[in-house]
Amino acid sequence: MDINFYKANDINLDLAVEAREIIRGQTGQEIPGCIMDKESYDQATVTIVRIVEEYAEQIMGKPRGNYITIEAPVIRENNRQAHQEVVEVLGKQLATLIHLPEHANVLVVGLGNWNATPDALGPKVVGMTLVTRHMYNYAPEEIKGGMRSVSALSPGVLGLTGIETAEIIKGVVDKVKPELVIAVDALASRSAERIGTTIQLADTGIAPGSGIGNKRAGINQESMGVPVIAIGVPTVIPAAVIAGETLDRLVEQTKNEPQMQSIYQKMNSEAFQPIVNAILQPYTSGQLMVTPKEIDTLIENTAKIIAGGISIALHPSITVEEYTNYLH
Amino acid sequence: MDINFYKANDINLDLAVEAREIIRGQTGQEIPGCIMDKESYDQATVTIVRIVEEYAEQIMGKPRGNYITIEAPVIRENNRQAHQEVVEVLGKQLATLIHLPEHANVLVVGLGNWNATPDALGPKVVGMTLVTRHMYNYAPEEIKGGMRSVSALSPGVLGLTGIETAEIIKGVVDKVKPELVIAVDALASRSAERIGTTIQLADTGIAPGSGIGNKRAGINQESMGVPVIAIGVPTVIPAAVIAGETLDRLVEQTKNEPQMQSIYQKMNSEAFQPIVNAILQPYTSGQLMVTPKEIDTLIENTAKIIAGGISIALHPSITVEEYTNYLH
Amino acid sequence: MDINFYKANDINLDLAVEAREIIRGQTGQEIPGCIMDKESYDQATVTIVRIVEEYAEQIMGKPRGNYITIEAPVIRENNRQAHQEVVEVLGKQLATLIHLPEHANVLVVGLGNWNATPDALGPKVVGMTLVTRHMYNYAPEEIKGGMRSVSALSPGVLGLTGIETAEIIKGVVDKVKPELVIAVDALASRSAERIGTTIQLADTGIAPGSGIGNKRAGINQESMGVPVIAIGVPTVIPAAVIAGETLDRLVEQTKNEPQMQSIYQKMNSEAFQPIVNAILQPYTSGQLMVTPKEIDTLIENTAKIIAGGISIALHPSITVEEYTNYLH
Amino acid sequence: MDINFYKANDINLDLAVEAREIIRGQTGQEIPGCIMDKESYDQATVTIVRIVEEYAEQIMGKPRGNYITIEAPVIRENNRQAHQEVVEVLGKQLATLIHLPEHANVLVVGLGNWNATPDALGPKVVGMTLVTRHMYNYAPEEIKGGMRSVSALSPGVLGLTGIETAEIIKGVVDKVKPELVIAVDALASRSAERIGTTIQLADTGIAPGSGIGNKRAGINQESMGVPVIAIGVPTVIPAAVIAGETLDRLVEQTKNEPQMQSIYQKMNSEAFQPIVNAILQPYTSGQLMVTPKEIDTLIENTAKIIAGGISIALHPSITVEEYTNYLH
Repeated sequence: MDINFYKANDINLDLAVEAREIIRGQTGQEIPGCIMDKESYDQATVTIVRIVEEYAEQIMGKPRGNYITIEAPVIRENNRQAHQEVVEVLGKQLATLIHLPEHANVLVVGLGNWNATPDALGPKVVGMTLVTRHMYNYAPEEIKGGMRSVSALSPGVLGLTGIETAEIIKGVVDKVKPELVIAVDALASRSAERIGTTIQLADTGIAPGSGIGNKRAGINQESMGVPVIAIGVPTVIPAAVIAGETLDRLVEQTKNEPQMQSIYQKMNSEAFQPIVNAILQPYTSGQLMVTPKEIDTLIENTAKIIAGGISIALHPSITVEEYTNYLH
Repeated sequence: MDINFYKANDINLDLAVEAREIIRGQTGQEIPGCIMDKESYDQATVTIVRIVEEYAEQIMGKPRGNYITIEAPVIRENNRQAHQEVVEVLGKQLATLIHLPEHANVLVVGLGNWNATPDALGPKVVGMTLVTRHMYNYAPEEIKGGMRSVSALSPGVLGLTGIETAEIIKGVVDKVKPELVIAVDALASRSAERIGTTIQLADTGIAPGSGIGNKRAGINQESMGVPVIAIGVPTVIPAAVIAGETLDRLVEQTKNEPQMQSIYQKMNSEAFQPIVNAILQPYTSGQLMVTPKEIDTLIENTAKIIAGGISIALHPSITVEEYTNYLH
Repeated sequence: MDINFYKANDINLDLAVEAREIIRGQTGQEIPGCIMDKESYDQATVTIVRIVEEYAEQIMGKPRGNYITIEAPVIRENNRQAHQEVVEVLGKQLATLIHLPEHANVLVVGLGNWNATPDALGPKVVGMTLVTRHMYNYAPEEIKGGMRSVSALSPGVLGLTGIETAEIIKGVVDKVKPELVIAVDALASRSAERIGTTIQLADTGIAPGSGIGNKRAGINQESMGVPVIAIGVPTVIPAAVIAGETLDRLVEQTKNEPQMQSIYQKMNSEAFQPIVNAILQPYTSGQLMVTPKEIDTLIENTAKIIAGGISIALHPSITVEEYTNYLH
Repeated sequence: MDINFYKANDINLDLAVEAREIIRGQTGQEIPGCIMDKESYDQATVTIVRIVEEYAEQIMGKPRGNYITIEAPVIRENNRQAHQEVVEVLGKQLATLIHLPEHANVLVVGLGNWNATPDALGPKVVGMTLVTRHMYNYAPEEIKGGMRSVSALSPGVLGLTGIETAEIIKGVVDKVKPELVIAVDALASRSAERIGTTIQLADTGIAPGSGIGNKRAGINQESMGVPVIAIGVPTVIPAAVIAGETLDRLVEQTKNEPQMQSIYQKMNSEAFQPIVNAILQPYTSGQLMVTPKEIDTLIENTAKIIAGGISIALHPSITVEEYTNYLH
């Protein structure tokens, strides 16, 4: 049965590991052309999914490239020591995706709306990133050695600006001429435990239409003319997903009741949509979002960790400790 | 079938109209000792539920008293003119619950946490209420005529203070000696369309354990020693309710399939709880909340309307227009 | 005596009316090539300064162009009716500077830092402006009639982005290709009574180096390639100005004491600088700012008025009333 | 000459070290009955002023008691390691003023307005304090050993509540029955370098009329019935003080010009008031405040340090490191 079908069409689930999990669940087998690795750290598990062939690209609905997922439930706790370890894991993983000369010029972009807590992750990361471009030319050579010229931008969202976010970024890329763009965004997820605790890095950039807002044009090498690394963190679950999950699990639970299954077979996935619509009305799918009560703290902690990871990956001479002290 | 059973135990749904609706749906008949009236306005529908007998009290799970529900979907729109009409309806309805001499002393209490948007409604109303107590003794008699001595308090939440909210309020009541307490609180609801648009007034105060936070002791005539009017507005739906609603509606949708119904009959309501738990984990019921994306604006608008309604109900000489200008 | 000399070098006072006032005070005569008009409204006084000749340009330290100052002390009060009148005056005055066809494309830029209250005016105006560009192509002709295609941008500040603000704006201008840029900024002033209550419009754009932050490159026709209208509002007084004003007024007060004046004559303006430095240390001039306690409300009110004025000037078919209802 | 006279009457300068400094400057001698000690730490200087006799009490305008001032300019920097040292110094100094049994019950009060950045210090400290009272009775004995029962309250300000802050606190004290109240407040200062970097502890509580808002009734042993320790931090300079300082320093600078001095002698201190009033109008003294641009960060850092110091002083079994992890 394919209740997931309706979700896949309706709500973009952005994590490659989730996509892979769903597809393997449905097909009961590995996806050809999709390679997976795992690394374990004290405070984090890292899963690397490489989509290397066209078939995998199509079935996963994601372009060929490397997707690194860092799962660190400890972000939910207020444990500064453990957070520092996650910063180090993130910095190290991010560095594996960056192929740049020492003095390269990098633009960090924080997508999302700074006025809406769960969507403010990107702008918050921008506010905490160690920006050096305006001082870089004046810095003494011995300091420059291990640093790069980093600038940052919070372009806002289409509803506030009337301009496609990709257009704003491209305008600034044309001026600043970075050799790499790192775009940070809040994602929708289908899992409560991922909120604020899972970080996905992808060297494919951001595909058209993903994310929780109206960010329809892609932010990737094709549109920007330079490589784009996307850093995404689930911050919300669409309320429609909760409804969909409930149906899925009920089907799962009653799978030994043959009559039940035959009834479900008769209902096509369209039959579920009116149920979900009725529950969410007057809102449409994507307007009602689920967040934990402590979302503000969670976003704050995650933003600190991402800004730290970016800063140590871009400035190899900086330690995690120093980063904290540099930060304005 | 009683899927609602699990919800009723688990999550407190605070609106008398919702409770009545559910019970009538389950029993298929009117509730004895529970009287209902309706009034219609251009921008609002008013439903008055009076619980007058012990039987109704028990079945509704709410103490005897008057529950006035104002439904005004127009609060979701940014229509200042229409909002002013809702202020007037609220002021008028609130006045029907207030039985006080001209110069009475009233304390407005804003329950909730000012750092968490959906729970900040109460403190926001306090910030917008026309407070007069500190100037009342100096005011000339001709102004005093149509005004009352109003003070306001945002006591915070147990998690931040370590003190039961009711204890803080009682301490202040003992000093300020008001003749009436009006307590404003954010509520959980089972309906998306009620968020920010439904206002419930109740002359029974706030029962122990309601609300979306840890407000366990009652705030009512019994605990405060003076009458307490509660003003509640749904601002969130617990994510567990979305799951519950989905199950309910699926059952409803398949009610003509006798085999389906018999399977459901076999599953007792406890069978659903693990499904819901699995979806929400690692969070427990009540920690994951559903809100619309524009929750900030919605809370802001609703707070303005409630503060306006309180101000004109308490200061009969003030017009809605004047209230706006008085406000700091 | 020229105590002002030190201030002029040190702190950029951005209002043309203030510059004119100071120069006339110093020289005791009118400035050739600088024309002034006044208009009076119930809630606002409008002063139009036209710098038309090179001499005036040099002595005023401001490029040739039209500078319209709207003084409306009523913004400090919470009088919504009166504020609406100020919106109308602003809309009307702004329209006199706009020479655009009906369907022109306009970009509104909110300069400043959204995390620092007195510098957040620009971003706040952006958040309240009626943006239409993303919907303009889909709008029916009869609505388009009286509307223009408006987009908006909050570029951030150099310290956060590492990029000159003018570079970011130019990048976006190159993509959006507006026929006019309107740039809103918070200014420093030498007068407490102007804070939040004086609005200056200038069709010369923003000169290099003005404003309260690091906005060093000019935002004007020369740098942008299209006309730029600047809307500036004083939101702070540099603490150094308070010190300077005190010295000025002391000199003024003792001007009938010939010995006093001779002592002052002996002290050159450099003698005052160490006094000011000693008072402000460890901060340097421009880092310590004076604001009224109610600055948050004042900025909020002023932002609403400016966004309203811009919206009715750009969309001639919209009334002030309608604007309020359109606003998201 | 006594320009300070006008300031002393007009604006309450709350630091005992500042008061002592001014008086010694004016009289040129030590104050009898006022004892001073100094301690030096890597990141902080501690000055302990003990007012032990009535004469000192009168001339200092402060009640008999111990005033500990911690000066730590490093708070202005973003150096987490150094901040931790300041937390330890504060915790140790605070402990010298606390004479309580192991299981004592303590109420932390955060004075001020959470909506106005420089006045939000107290409420911010409350939000970061390790509150235990609501869990204390359930905690196992081995944990209780080194902890105390701590509760916290943000009473708001008179303008918002209509209730004297002291009345609200007393109401809560009567319920919670603490054996000690610790009241945290933002202060006015006459020195820019003290803003956010000087912490004063006083075992005399808060005298009537101090602070930057309307906190007219005293919060001290007399009014509360239990000892009150005040923790104050300068967060603003009244703009009038900048004007006064300018005049003082000008007089100082010209003290070798006998004619100048004689002119000043003729002007009494009232002559300066109109100068100051003219500069500040339409605001009155105390409404215009000077703050550094980075006031938000400074308040945030200071609040963290104070909350940390309070937490380790009250819970002797907690280390600075653990405190960070406990914190919600």
